[in-house]
Amino acid sequence: MQALQACGVPADAARTQAELLVEAELCERPSHGLMRLPRVLQRVRSGACDPAARGAGQWRGGSYLEVDGQNGLGPVVANAALDAIQPRARETGVALAAIRRNNHLGMLGWYAERVARAGQVLLALSTSEALVHPWGGRQALVGTNPIAIGVPVAPHPFVLDMATSRVSMGEIHDRAQRGQAIPGDWALDAAGDSTTDPVAAREGAIAPFGGAKGYALGLAFELLVTALTGAAIGRAVKGTLDATEPCNKGDLFLVMQPDSSAAASLSAYLDEIRSCPPAHPDRPVLVPGDRARERRERRLAQGIELPATLWREIQAQADHTPS
Amino acid sequence: MQALQACGVPADAARTQAELLVEAELCERPSHGLMRLPRVLQRVRSGACDPAARGAGQWRGGSYLEVDGQNGLGPVVANAALDAIQPRARETGVALAAIRRNNHLGMLGWYAERVARAGQVLLALSTSEALVHPWGGRQALVGTNPIAIGVPVAPHPFVLDMATSRVSMGEIHDRAQRGQAIPGDWALDAAGDSTTDPVAAREGAIAPFGGAKGYALGLAFELLVTALTGAAIGRAVKGTLDATEPCNKGDLFLVMQPDSSAAASLSAYLDEIRSCPPAHPDRPVLVPGDRARERRERRLAQGIELPATLWREIQAQADHTPS
Repeated sequence: MQALQACGVPADAARTQAELLVEAELCERPSHGLMRLPRVLQRVRSGACDPAARGAGQWRGGSYLEVDGQNGLGPVVANAALDAIQPRARETGVALAAIRRNNHLGMLGWYAERVARAGQVLLALSTSEALVHPWGGRQALVGTNPIAIGVPVAPHPFVLDMATSRVSMGEIHDRAQRGQAIPGDWALDAAGDSTTDPVAAREGAIAPFGGAKGYALGLAFELLVTALTGAAIGRAVKGTLDATEPCNKGDLFLVMQPDSSAAASLSAYLDEIRSCPPAHPDRPVLVPGDRARERRERRLAQGIELPATLWREIQAQADHTPS
Repeated sequence: MQALQACGVPADAARTQAELLVEAELCERPSHGLMRLPRVLQRVRSGACDPAARGAGQWRGGSYLEVDGQNGLGPVVANAALDAIQPRARETGVALAAIRRNNHLGMLGWYAERVARAGQVLLALSTSEALVHPWGGRQALVGTNPIAIGVPVAPHPFVLDMATSRVSMGEIHDRAQRGQAIPGDWALDAAGDSTTDPVAAREGAIAPFGGAKGYALGLAFELLVTALTGAAIGRAVKGTLDATEPCNKGDLFLVMQPDSSAAASLSAYLDEIRSCPPAHPDRPVLVPGDRARERRERRLAQGIELPATLWREIQAQADHTPS
């Protein structure tokens, strides 16, 4: 928080951004955690991110909020959009926010959890830089196009949060840093050939998850978001990985009002799935979100481990005075 | 059409149902084609399907249509729901139909194509009988939970239509009839063990597509649809495969009004994907829907081939007089 405030982020916005990054650490998703903070700070300092902007929403219809993110902090603009469409969905049954010119949203499951805890369903989609090759293609042309779905279920909301790529680029960077090979079906090198070298994969393309179907789905999400937001698409997308480019991808939130009679059957159904006879006796069947919740509880009790270099970098930034 | 009218289906409804089945044949998706007609007729005769019902819609909010399908013909009820929400989405930006007590929708891409041709975006989800095992589990507990997405793009709408299962149960039945083995990662037998015998797989469970991620996504769609429709879930779902049970799954249509400024960039982007250097020189990269469109054109020129037994069965039903 201090590091963010030191470069001009208002206190409440700094708290939102910091909370999201710490939540990702708690869920053991370091690629969406504090390792992103130095890049956020660089983007604020370079002017690619306006730390005071909250986004400007305009209703294009009774249930359709068009949001100009004004290059604000991703979670600050996104939360403001949800604040606007959640009450609207309570009235009309469904409301959407189509957001452009917003910075990286971070872990999408965080928004799904928020909305589901408020008793509503969220479908969240976001586009990204082209890092993924089309199925049967040799070049990165498709985004990692993550999706999150939150559904109110007792006692914990159901939260799905996944990219439509085989793995994240963060995972490939992590393997490169550790000097570990990657499986041959994860990525292509810059020439478009399959590789087990993570350093070569960083310059190439990640595979879509789930073969032809996963490719088709990720592409469909990318088109859907772009059709609604009018954001950039494919290789024209910039600004979620670099320090200086304005971020021009699109984000879509759909909030829906559930039928409250369904909650009990959903809860019983998820328990039935958890008690499904497992293929491996020592690996019980999981429901998406179960593992993240366990990790979060463990880390809340035991604390978060950060690489020492990252922690030093964040502390150094916190000691800066605002320019 | 005559076979449908012979068991009491009004002429316009018979035309809708027949057109949908023929379209699936044209796109070479026989599992959603005329092989389904005898079962539709049986369901009408058994009373599980009311051939005159159109569904009753009630607005739960300005953008949320709750539809009681009244056990009507799937595509008849679905089209009536789209007729109601498409103009509403033009006003409010987004409108959804949450449908229960409706019969099998057939090929979801048909609806996506219809809505995209009208200049709107469709996201369609439907649940089904539990035919798919959770990732790491040995029993069928999850539906095949298909998704369709239609986006207006020149010159052809973009249409994605896929199940979240590895393959369709129809494909497994087809292999069984031909006496062909199936790949070992398609399905489990009734005991929960992986099998290459399609006859054993029919009594077991299909794998989800895309491993753990595909399972998570299919399950999320199932929860989302059930939360909104209040329909049955998991093993309680009946009536899309049998002849007599009322159909109690849920269908969800979300119609959204796109930003018209995006259409040109979407079209250029899809062409860029089609010209991506291919992994196999003789297999160009495809955009979802490309192959179905080619097949449709070929079949429109050359005609549809049906198994002789199926054609005889349909003709026999057409000669029945209404009971």
